[in-house]
Amino acid sequence: MTVLYFDDFSIGQVYKSGRMRVDKDAIIRFATEFDPQPYHLDDAAARDTVFRGLAASGWHTAAMTMRLLVDGEFRPAGGIIGVGFDEFSWPRPVRPGDELTVRSEIVEVRPSKSRPDRGTIRVRTTTLNQNDEIVQSYVGTLIVPKRPE
Amino acid sequence: MTVLYFDDFSIGQVYKSGRMRVDKDAIIRFATEFDPQPYHLDDAAARDTVFRGLAASGWHTAAMTMRLLVDGEFRPAGGIIGVGFDEFSWPRPVRPGDELTVRSEIVEVRPSKSRPDRGTIRVRTTTLNQNDEIVQSYVGTLIVPKRPE
Repeated sequence: MTVLYFDDFSIGQVYKSGRMRVDKDAIIRFATEFDPQPYHLDDAAARDTVFRGLAASGWHTAAMTMRLLVDGEFRPAGGIIGVGFDEFSWPRPVRPGDELTVRSEIVEVRPSKSRPDRGTIRVRTTTLNQNDEIVQSYVGTLIVPKRPE
Repeated sequence: MTVLYFDDFSIGQVYKSGRMRVDKDAIIRFATEFDPQPYHLDDAAARDTVFRGLAASGWHTAAMTMRLLVDGEFRPAGGIIGVGFDEFSWPRPVRPGDELTVRSEIVEVRPSKSRPDRGTIRVRTTTLNQNDEIVQSYVGTLIVPKRPE
Protein backbone atom coordinates (compact mmCIF):
# COMPACT_ATOMS: atom_id res chain seq x y z
CA MET A 1 0.00 0.00 0.00
CA THR A 2 1.29 3.48 -0.86
CA VAL A 3 2.63 5.68 1.90
CA LEU A 4 1.10 9.17 1.81
CA TYR A 5 3.03 12.41 2.24
CA PHE A 6 1.63 15.82 3.17
CA ASP A 7 1.66 16.73 -0.54
CA ASP A 8 -0.75 13.86 -1.28
CA PHE A 9 -3.56 15.09 0.94
CA SER A 10 -6.35 17.42 -0.05
CA ILE A 11 -9.64 18.40 1.52
CA GLY A 12 -12.51 16.04 0.77
CA GLN A 13 -10.43 12.89 0.19
CA VAL A 14 -11.89 9.78 1.79
CA TYR A 15 -9.87 6.72 2.86
CA LYS A 16 -11.50 3.44 3.82
CA SER A 17 -10.68 0.45 6.01
CA GLY A 18 -11.49 -3.23 6.03
CA ARG A 19 -14.08 -4.71 8.38
CA MET A 20 -13.75 -6.03 11.91
CA ARG A 21 -16.28 -8.26 13.64
CA VAL A 22 -16.79 -7.52 17.33
CA ASP A 23 -17.06 -10.70 19.39
CA LYS A 24 -18.78 -10.89 22.75
CA ASP A 25 -15.68 -12.48 24.30
CA ALA A 26 -13.50 -9.64 23.07
CA ILE A 27 -15.90 -7.05 24.55
CA ILE A 28 -15.80 -8.77 27.94
CA ARG A 29 -12.04 -9.34 27.85
CA PHE A 30 -11.27 -5.69 27.07
CA ALA A 31 -13.72 -4.46 29.72
CA THR A 32 -12.35 -6.82 32.36
CA GLU A 33 -8.91 -5.31 31.88
CA PHE A 34 -9.72 -1.65 31.25
CA ASP A 35 -13.36 -0.72 31.88
CA PRO A 36 -14.97 -3.13 34.36
CA GLN A 37 -18.44 -1.59 34.53
CA PRO A 38 -21.55 -3.86 34.47
CA TYR A 39 -22.82 -2.86 31.00
CA HIS A 40 -19.50 -3.90 29.43
CA LEU A 41 -19.15 -7.20 31.34
CA ASP A 42 -22.44 -9.02 31.55
CA ASP A 43 -25.53 -9.15 29.38
CA ALA A 44 -28.02 -9.60 32.23
CA ALA A 45 -26.49 -6.80 34.31
CA ALA A 46 -26.42 -4.55 31.23
CA ARG A 47 -30.13 -4.92 30.58
CA ASP A 48 -31.10 -2.64 33.47
CA THR A 49 -28.71 0.13 32.46
CA VAL A 50 -28.89 2.96 29.93
CA PHE A 51 -27.22 0.58 27.42
CA ARG A 52 -30.08 -2.00 27.61
CA GLY A 53 -27.71 -4.86 26.82
CA LEU A 54 -24.02 -5.66 26.59
CA ALA A 55 -22.05 -2.90 24.83
CA ALA A 56 -18.36 -2.51 24.10
CA SER A 57 -16.37 -0.01 26.15
CA GLY A 58 -15.97 3.18 24.13
CA TRP A 59 -12.21 2.80 24.52
CA HIS A 60 -12.46 -0.64 23.00
CA THR A 61 -14.24 0.92 20.02
CA ALA A 62 -11.47 3.53 19.83
CA ALA A 63 -8.81 0.77 19.94
CA MET A 64 -10.56 -1.31 17.26
CA THR A 65 -10.85 1.83 15.14
CA MET A 66 -7.10 2.30 15.43
CA ARG A 67 -6.49 -1.28 14.28
CA LEU A 68 -8.75 -0.74 11.27
CA LEU A 69 -6.87 2.49 10.49
CA VAL A 70 -3.44 0.86 10.71
CA ASP A 71 -4.56 -1.90 8.34
CA GLY A 72 -6.50 0.41 6.01
CA GLU A 73 -5.87 2.80 3.12
CA PHE A 74 -5.00 5.82 5.26
CA ARG A 75 -1.20 5.48 5.56
CA PRO A 76 0.56 8.78 6.27
CA ALA A 77 4.37 8.62 6.06
CA GLY A 78 5.89 8.22 9.52
CA GLY A 79 2.77 6.51 10.85
CA ILE A 80 -0.60 7.51 12.24
CA ILE A 81 0.52 9.80 15.05
CA GLY A 82 -2.32 11.85 16.45
CA VAL A 83 -1.37 15.01 18.31
CA GLY A 84 -4.89 15.90 19.32
CA PHE A 85 -8.57 15.13 18.92
CA ASP A 86 -11.79 17.04 19.12
CA GLU A 87 -15.50 16.41 18.77
CA PHE A 88 -15.03 12.87 20.05
CA SER A 89 -18.34 11.07 20.52
CA TRP A 90 -19.91 7.63 20.74
CA PRO A 91 -23.44 8.25 19.44
CA ARG A 92 -24.52 4.58 19.53
CA PRO A 93 -23.36 1.44 21.39
CA VAL A 94 -21.24 -1.28 19.75
CA ARG A 95 -22.87 -4.70 20.25
CA PRO A 96 -21.61 -8.27 20.03
CA GLY A 97 -21.71 -9.36 16.39
CA ASP A 98 -21.37 -5.82 14.99
CA GLU A 99 -19.02 -5.36 12.04
CA LEU A 100 -17.07 -2.12 12.09
CA THR A 101 -15.46 -0.12 9.32
CA VAL A 102 -13.70 3.24 9.43
CA ARG A 103 -13.97 6.17 7.07
CA SER A 104 -11.28 8.87 7.18
CA GLU A 105 -12.14 12.16 5.51
CA ILE A 106 -9.56 14.93 5.15
CA VAL A 107 -11.15 18.14 6.42
CA GLU A 108 -8.13 20.45 6.70
CA VAL A 109 -4.64 20.63 5.17
CA ARG A 110 -2.21 23.22 6.52
CA PRO A 111 1.53 23.55 5.82
CA SER A 112 3.69 24.23 8.86
CA LYS A 113 4.84 27.84 9.14
CA SER A 114 7.97 27.05 11.12
CA ARG A 115 8.92 23.65 9.62
CA PRO A 116 8.94 23.58 5.80
CA ASP A 117 9.38 19.78 5.78
CA ARG A 118 5.94 18.99 7.21
CA GLY A 119 2.34 20.01 7.63
CA THR A 120 -0.76 19.38 9.66
CA ILE A 121 -3.86 17.56 8.46
CA ARG A 122 -7.18 17.20 10.23
CA VAL A 123 -9.13 14.02 9.62
CA ARG A 124 -12.77 13.29 10.45
CA THR A 125 -12.54 9.65 11.53
CA THR A 126 -15.92 7.92 11.53
CA THR A 127 -16.52 4.36 12.72
CA LEU A 128 -19.63 2.71 11.27
CA ASN A 129 -21.44 -0.53 12.04
CA GLN A 130 -22.84 -2.99 9.48
CA ASN A 131 -25.99 -0.82 9.14
CA ASP A 132 -23.92 2.27 8.29
CA GLU A 133 -24.79 3.77 11.66
CA ILE A 134 -22.12 5.91 13.30
CA VAL A 135 -20.77 4.36 16.51
CA GLN A 136 -17.81 6.71 16.98
CA SER A 137 -16.62 9.96 15.49
CA TYR A 138 -13.77 12.38 16.07
CA VAL A 139 -11.61 14.89 14.27
CA GLY A 140 -7.95 14.00 14.66
CA THR A 141 -4.98 16.30 14.08
CA LEU A 142 -1.87 14.67 12.59
CA ILE A 143 1.54 15.96 11.60
CA VAL A 144 2.67 14.52 8.26
CA PRO A 145 6.06 14.96 6.56
CA LYS A 146 6.31 16.40 3.04
CA ARG A 147 7.70 14.15 0.31
CA PRO A 148 11.51 14.24 0.44
CA GLU A 149 12.90 16.14 -2.58
CA MET B 1 -16.77 4.30 48.04
CA THR B 2 -19.61 6.82 47.84
CA VAL B 3 -21.60 7.09 44.63
CA LEU B 4 -21.92 10.68 43.43
CA TYR B 5 -25.11 12.28 42.14
CA PHE B 6 -25.42 15.41 40.04
CA ASP B 7 -26.19 17.37 43.23
CA ASP B 8 -22.79 16.40 44.66
CA PHE B 9 -20.72 18.01 41.92
CA SER B 10 -19.46 21.57 41.86
CA ILE B 11 -16.91 23.42 39.76
CA GLY B 12 -13.35 23.07 40.99
CA GLN B 13 -13.73 19.72 42.75
CA VAL B 14 -10.84 17.33 42.14
CA TYR B 15 -11.06 13.53 42.31
CA LYS B 16 -7.99 11.30 42.34
CA SER B 17 -7.12 7.76 41.34
CA GLY B 18 -4.66 5.13 42.46
CA ARG B 19 -1.48 4.38 40.52
CA MET B 20 -0.84 1.99 37.65
CA ARG B 21 2.57 0.81 36.54
CA VAL B 22 2.98 0.43 32.78
CA ASP B 23 4.92 -2.69 31.86
CA LYS B 24 6.79 -3.14 28.61
CA ASP B 25 4.97 -6.42 27.95
CA ALA B 26 1.60 -4.73 28.37
CA ILE B 27 2.60 -1.97 25.91
CA ILE B 28 3.62 -4.53 23.29
CA ARG B 29 0.59 -6.76 23.89
CA PHE B 30 -1.88 -3.88 23.49
CA ALA B 31 -0.11 -2.59 20.39
CA THR B 32 0.03 -6.03 18.80
CA GLU B 33 -3.73 -6.28 19.04
CA PHE B 34 -4.82 -2.70 18.36
CA ASP B 35 -2.01 -0.41 17.16
CA PRO B 36 0.76 -2.44 15.48
CA GLN B 37 3.09 0.42 14.52
CA PRO B 38 6.88 0.05 15.06
CA TYR B 39 7.24 2.62 17.88
CA HIS B 40 4.68 0.71 19.98
CA LEU B 41 6.10 -2.77 19.30
CA ASP B 42 9.87 -2.78 19.42
CA ASP B 43 12.45 -0.70 21.24
CA ALA B 44 15.09 -0.81 18.50
CA ALA B 45 12.59 0.05 15.74
CA ALA B 46 11.19 2.86 17.90
CA ARG B 47 14.57 4.55 18.32
CA ASP B 48 14.58 5.92 14.76
CA THR B 49 11.08 7.38 15.00
CA VAL B 50 9.70 10.60 16.45
CA PHE B 51 9.15 8.69 19.74
CA ARG B 52 12.89 7.88 20.15
CA GLY B 53 12.10 4.68 22.04
CA LEU B 54 9.21 2.35 22.83
CA ALA B 55 6.04 4.24 23.75
CA ALA B 56 2.55 3.06 24.63
CA SER B 57 -0.20 3.48 22.05
CA GLY B 58 -2.23 6.55 22.94
CA TRP B 59 -5.31 4.34 23.00
CA HIS B 60 -3.59 2.14 25.55
CA THR B 61 -3.04 5.23 27.69
CA ALA B 62 -6.72 6.10 27.24
CA ALA B 63 -7.72 2.56 28.28
CA MET B 64 -5.44 2.57 31.34
CA THR B 65 -6.85 5.97 32.27
CA MET B 66 -10.34 4.47 32.17
CA ARG B 67 -9.27 1.64 34.48
CA LEU B 68 -7.80 4.14 36.95
CA LEU B 69 -11.05 6.15 36.78
CA VAL B 70 -13.26 3.10 37.39
CA ASP B 71 -11.17 2.16 40.45
CA GLY B 72 -10.76 5.74 41.71
CA GLU B 73 -12.69 8.35 43.70
CA PHE B 74 -14.71 9.70 40.78
CA ARG B 75 -17.85 7.53 40.94
CA PRO B 76 -20.89 9.14 39.34
CA ALA B 77 -24.17 7.29 39.91
CA GLY B 78 -25.01 5.12 36.91
CA GLY B 79 -21.35 4.74 35.95
CA ILE B 80 -18.76 6.70 34.03
CA ILE B 81 -20.58 7.12 30.73
CA GLY B 82 -18.95 9.68 28.49
CA VAL B 83 -21.13 11.19 25.79
CA GLY B 84 -18.38 13.26 24.24
CA PHE B 85 -14.82 14.50 24.55
CA ASP B 86 -12.89 17.54 23.46
CA GLU B 87 -9.36 18.90 23.67
CA PHE B 88 -8.00 15.37 23.69
CA SER B 89 -4.21 15.31 23.54
CA TRP B 90 -1.18 13.16 24.33
CA PRO B 91 1.51 15.78 25.05
CA ARG B 92 4.21 13.26 26.09
CA PRO B 93 4.82 9.55 25.47
CA VAL B 94 4.12 6.85 28.06
CA ARG B 95 7.21 4.67 28.59
CA PRO B 96 7.79 1.23 30.07
CA GLY B 97 8.08 1.60 33.85
CA ASP B 98 5.99 4.76 34.03
CA GLU B 99 3.47 5.00 36.86
CA LEU B 100 0.23 6.70 35.91
CA THR B 101 -2.38 8.47 38.00
CA VAL B 102 -5.50 10.33 36.94
CA ARG B 103 -6.87 13.65 38.18
CA SER B 104 -10.50 14.53 37.42
CA GLU B 105 -11.45 18.19 37.84
CA ILE B 106 -15.04 19.33 37.50
CA VAL B 107 -15.06 22.30 35.10
CA GLU B 108 -18.77 22.67 34.34
CA VAL B 109 -22.05 21.68 36.03
CA ARG B 110 -25.28 22.19 34.11
CA PRO B 111 -28.79 20.92 34.99
CA SER B 112 -30.73 19.46 32.09
CA LYS B 113 -33.42 21.77 30.73
CA SER B 114 -35.64 19.00 29.41
CA ARG B 115 -34.98 16.27 32.02
CA PRO B 116 -35.29 17.45 35.64
CA ASP B 117 -33.88 14.13 36.95
CA ARG B 118 -30.36 14.65 35.58
CA GLY B 119 -27.65 17.06 34.53
CA THR B 120 -24.46 17.33 32.56
CA ILE B 121 -20.99 17.70 34.01
CA ARG B 122 -17.76 18.41 32.16
CA VAL B 123 -14.61 16.91 33.63
CA ARG B 124 -11.00 17.78 32.76
CA THR B 125 -9.38 14.34 32.96
CA THR B 126 -5.59 14.52 33.23
CA THR B 127 -3.28 11.52 33.25
CA LEU B 128 0.10 12.13 34.87
CA ASN B 129 3.30 10.09 35.05
CA GLN B 130 5.48 9.60 38.15
CA ASN B 131 7.17 12.97 37.49
CA ASP B 132 3.80 14.79 37.46
CA GLU B 133 4.16 15.32 33.71
CA ILE B 134 0.94 15.26 31.69
CA VAL B 135 0.76 12.30 29.30
CA GLN B 136 -2.91 12.66 28.35
CA SER B 137 -5.62 15.24 28.79
CA TYR B 138 -9.21 15.67 27.69
CA VAL B 139 -12.45 17.28 28.74
CA GLY B 140 -15.20 14.69 28.98
CA THR B 141 -18.94 15.35 29.04
CA LEU B 142 -21.01 13.04 31.24
CA ILE B 143 -24.70 12.80 32.05
CA VAL B 144 -25.29 12.19 35.75
CA PRO B 145 -28.63 11.50 37.52
CA LYS B 146 -29.81 13.73 40.36
CA ARG B 147 -30.19 12.13 43.79
CA PRO B 148 -33.57 10.36 43.97
CA GLU B 149 -35.93 12.25 46.30
